[in-house]
Amino acid sequence: MAFGYDTITPEPVSKLIDEFNRLPGIGPKSASRLVFYLLRAKREQSERLANAIMAMKDTTIFCNRCFNITVDDPCSICTNANRNERQVCVVEEPLDVVALERTGEFKGLYHVLHGAISPVEGINPEDLKIRELLGRLRVEPIEEVILSTNPNLEGDATAAYLAREIIPLGIRVTRLARGLPMGSDLEYADEVTLGRALQGRREM
Amino acid sequence: MAFGYDTITPEPVSKLIDEFNRLPGIGPKSASRLVFYLLRAKREQSERLANAIMAMKDTTIFCNRCFNITVDDPCSICTNANRNERQVCVVEEPLDVVALERTGEFKGLYHVLHGAISPVEGINPEDLKIRELLGRLRVEPIEEVILSTNPNLEGDATAAYLAREIIPLGIRVTRLARGLPMGSDLEYADEVTLGRALQGRREM
Repeated sequence: MAFGYDTITPEPVSKLIDEFNRLPGIGPKSASRLVFYLLRAKREQSERLANAIMAMKDTTIFCNRCFNITVDDPCSICTNANRNERQVCVVEEPLDVVALERTGEFKGLYHVLHGAISPVEGINPEDLKIRELLGRLRVEPIEEVILSTNPNLEGDATAAYLAREIIPLGIRVTRLARGLPMGSDLEYADEVTLGRALQGRREM
Repeated sequence: MAFGYDTITPEPVSKLIDEFNRLPGIGPKSASRLVFYLLRAKREQSERLANAIMAMKDTTIFCNRCFNITVDDPCSICTNANRNERQVCVVEEPLDVVALERTGEFKGLYHVLHGAISPVEGINPEDLKIRELLGRLRVEPIEEVILSTNPNLEGDATAAYLAREIIPLGIRVTRLARGLPMGSDLEYADEVTLGRALQGRREM
């Protein structure tokens, strides 16, 4: 009830505003706007949305090997014989898999941690799919683990933790490069990014 | 399919991303974020959201007198004997009624136009609840129409149109005051707002 409803907003309306408001990135104002949009839109659109929500929830699962979302377990990447089983790319979220696949540059397998270590938010290594990753390293022919957690505090902490666990196993551990993003402007780059770009400079 | 899906995102997931993406103010990136949030959230949350969408769509209607959203027709404002039937406040959207009620300053009735005149978007007077408003002015004891459409091009055009139609009926027509918003900074006020504030200045 973040918005302070009144007696005039019908209960089904304020209830839906509340539900939208519970979603990440949707504040009370955008929640109202969504609701009033649906109020005026065709019934079919609401139906399609409600059905899509339940269909997704009812038909998708997490792959038991890489923990990406999938309809079939194991997922289509894990069962694809053309993928390189010797490389595994470790990411925080299923969306990161989508982003990496879009590059077309990676042909190995994935492992989705479902988060990053964050003492502030109370997320510890045991809350992530880290034990499962270490288990895979024991039984799968993995030769390189590419740590692709986000380039921020939590992602770096998670990568450091994983490196400490994996390097002793004699497996190569790499991290995605830091530097200036394509199309960016050196003048506006923050000092950390620019510092990393300098450190990581390469021979032309 | 604004996002350019891939073969790895399961169809129920991309379908829900599409549906969220269809809503106003939700781009492909926020749509994905919502979907991946729901994927990980408890099933009950998805269920509550899906049910709230359909419940709202199935139980709310527009009041046949003022066209505000309501569960009962006529709505609770129209049937409230304590409201002043001689004043009607004309607004564009149901959300505007909520905003005005929150002020606690208005005790009259409302009339929701469901939009504003906008030749650019092809919205003409006959697409709004204007005929219905003029009908009310004929049969109800209305003495003042407070034009509370938005202070922008479309809202002003709509107000001007309504004034031309209503003034000849001998009914008082007023418009919400323009000026500097509370808590704002004169230095940063745009010239139109500041100009209107000057024109509308009042004796202390």
